[in-house]
Amino acid sequence: MIAEKMKNMVANSSAIRAMFEEGNRLAKIYGAENVYDFSLGNPNVPAPEAVKKAIAKLIEEEDPVALHGYTNSNCGYADVREAVASSLNERFGTRFEGKNIVMTVGAAGGLNVILKSLINPKDEVIAFAPYFGEYRSYTDNYDGVLVEISPNTADFQPKLDEFEQKITPKTKAVIVNTPNNPTGVVYSEETIQKMAAILEAKQKEYGTDIFLISDEPYRELVYDGAEVPYLTKYYDNTIVGYSYSKSLSLPGERIGYLVIPDEAADSEQLLAAANVATRILGFVNAPTLQQKIVAKCLNEKTDVSYYNRNREALYQGLKECGFECIKPEGAFYLFVKSPTADEKEFCAAAKKYNLLIVPGSSFACPGYVRLAYCVSYETIINSLPKFRELAKEYF
Amino acid sequence: MIAEKMKNMVANSSAIRAMFEEGNRLAKIYGAENVYDFSLGNPNVPAPEAVKKAIAKLIEEEDPVALHGYTNSNCGYADVREAVASSLNERFGTRFEGKNIVMTVGAAGGLNVILKSLINPKDEVIAFAPYFGEYRSYTDNYDGVLVEISPNTADFQPKLDEFEQKITPKTKAVIVNTPNNPTGVVYSEETIQKMAAILEAKQKEYGTDIFLISDEPYRELVYDGAEVPYLTKYYDNTIVGYSYSKSLSLPGERIGYLVIPDEAADSEQLLAAANVATRILGFVNAPTLQQKIVAKCLNEKTDVSYYNRNREALYQGLKECGFECIKPEGAFYLFVKSPTADEKEFCAAAKKYNLLIVPGSSFACPGYVRLAYCVSYETIINSLPKFRELAKEYF
Repeated sequence: MIAEKMKNMVANSSAIRAMFEEGNRLAKIYGAENVYDFSLGNPNVPAPEAVKKAIAKLIEEEDPVALHGYTNSNCGYADVREAVASSLNERFGTRFEGKNIVMTVGAAGGLNVILKSLINPKDEVIAFAPYFGEYRSYTDNYDGVLVEISPNTADFQPKLDEFEQKITPKTKAVIVNTPNNPTGVVYSEETIQKMAAILEAKQKEYGTDIFLISDEPYRELVYDGAEVPYLTKYYDNTIVGYSYSKSLSLPGERIGYLVIPDEAADSEQLLAAANVATRILGFVNAPTLQQKIVAKCLNEKTDVSYYNRNREALYQGLKECGFECIKPEGAFYLFVKSPTADEKEFCAAAKKYNLLIVPGSSFACPGYVRLAYCVSYETIINSLPKFRELAKEYF
Repeated sequence: MIAEKMKNMVANSSAIRAMFEEGNRLAKIYGAENVYDFSLGNPNVPAPEAVKKAIAKLIEEEDPVALHGYTNSNCGYADVREAVASSLNERFGTRFEGKNIVMTVGAAGGLNVILKSLINPKDEVIAFAPYFGEYRSYTDNYDGVLVEISPNTADFQPKLDEFEQKITPKTKAVIVNTPNNPTGVVYSEETIQKMAAILEAKQKEYGTDIFLISDEPYRELVYDGAEVPYLTKYYDNTIVGYSYSKSLSLPGERIGYLVIPDEAADSEQLLAAANVATRILGFVNAPTLQQKIVAKCLNEKTDVSYYNRNREALYQGLKECGFECIKPEGAFYLFVKSPTADEKEFCAAAKKYNLLIVPGSSFACPGYVRLAYCVSYETIINSLPKFRELAKEYF
């Protein structure tokens, strides 16, 4: 009775979400402190105090009709868009204006808006495994075809030779996610330069426009001084999708933006399409109070040291148990090699110890598992004896 | 370069929105007080004071990690869903539970979620003209076909004979909107009973399920004691889409819900599909702070007397000018007969007097214009001399 397309999706409903719901179920049985839920990227660091202050100030000082009303443009408040553009320009030496910014319902909303704006049925969208599994659904929403580049398990930088081979005249977009979910890897400047050169050459060869969509909710979550190149500076047809979910710990509030630079092909038409797509997909506009909040908190930072402490503790702890994992430079995930080929079996074994981890096949990379360490430090420390017991089953 | 589907949509981008943006442009030139913008359903009544109090309380008392975090289910907070269900049960004698409620990004988000959940390509969705033009876009998002029932300009109740004739084995959904945008008409209980009987008979005839989707953001905005039947009580396959945009004056905040009753066919599967659709369309969940706010304000009411005063003044004023219009029983729109067949010409003439009104062709009902009277009373009163001047061009 439900739509055919949805039948499969309901059947394979996100393993990540299922795990998250399972975590809540187990917490009710065993107590939350005895469940080690590494399943979802739901930050455990509270939003900066400035967010609370911004809300208190906004409700005191702003006219509620304007504060909670429709925005003049579906792309968001003009002043918010300008503030976001200025902040990016200061940080990255770009030259965006308010008109280049489309406020969105999180990065997920932004990706849907840009794919709706760009994709014709059967157009190809390239993603590098391992990738956030939702990219497949978002592409499918517009009848596009997701083309996968196989994972480079040596260092999880993208396989650029395979990438070059898989670009076709039907390639309309390439999604990159750096710092990466699920690996925590940051794509190096060299990687980005090579990728841009390949795209330029292929655009020329085919006479097409290929859009590089940078999904970057983890931009600010980097460790050990890692630098995350700002991609619009390397390739003209770059669209940036951003979310404040992680940087301001507001994942439930659904607030982010797209950047559509003037340098992108037919940028005016693309901005107009993004405006219409925001409306007709049912977003209408990004939540207005949240738009005003983030505009007041553009210089706020989340507590990266909190995540870094978790990263060090979990990484060292797992290594000591005998697990294999590359040390992530960003985001808040560890991507750990499963000690058995069938990582779903490993996840099931982990669950016996109330350890909730997500199979890599959810990210098109079987044989690995993802651990989200955006949990309390206590959870990390208390989980380590459980991981040691789990390890004993394998090593 | 943009998607083919979007080219048309960008070209025909919502006349309502264009008018709204035009209003802002004119306000800059002539001063806001000299522009009479009846173009958009953006309430001029502020959110109830209780909304502000709820926000202040929530940011003081709730853990920000939970308040701004992802909800356990994509359908929303369990406590919020239960509170919404209880409130509906109290008001309408229904028997919903929390699981029947899906919190959505406004009614527009909810309609997209349910259409994504239901519609296969070429499935038919029926709407009664005049209807909110976005229904066509929402249906098209899922490659459905919008089937239009022509307007009954005598009283703007739906034409049920034509409806019966146009139901086919491909009919998957019927959208009704009562109180109606753009006419302000409330569908009578008799209308609803007849409509339900037709649907029951056609379901039986074709062996199909046909879903009645009740889009009802204006439910509480009724005048002269009009009653709005609660549709789930008349027909099992009813889905309700609601928004707090008008009842709590929160249109920019994007908060509403769907009701998927147990009585609906395969309701469990449909709820699972709505959960997945919420995620993959990029909504992920309805904004969390807003979920908590509305749960605290379920008994709040907007100032209907404010809209009623506007309704009376504008209706009487226009009648005195010689314009024809049926008196609306709900919502905050007047649907006025254009004094010339080409109502776009009439709208252009009105603009010379800084009167911004929307052509009926945006609602599949040419020859009429829509005036949104959710403006200040002053705007109404000051606009009347302009309408008198405009009328002189025709009568």
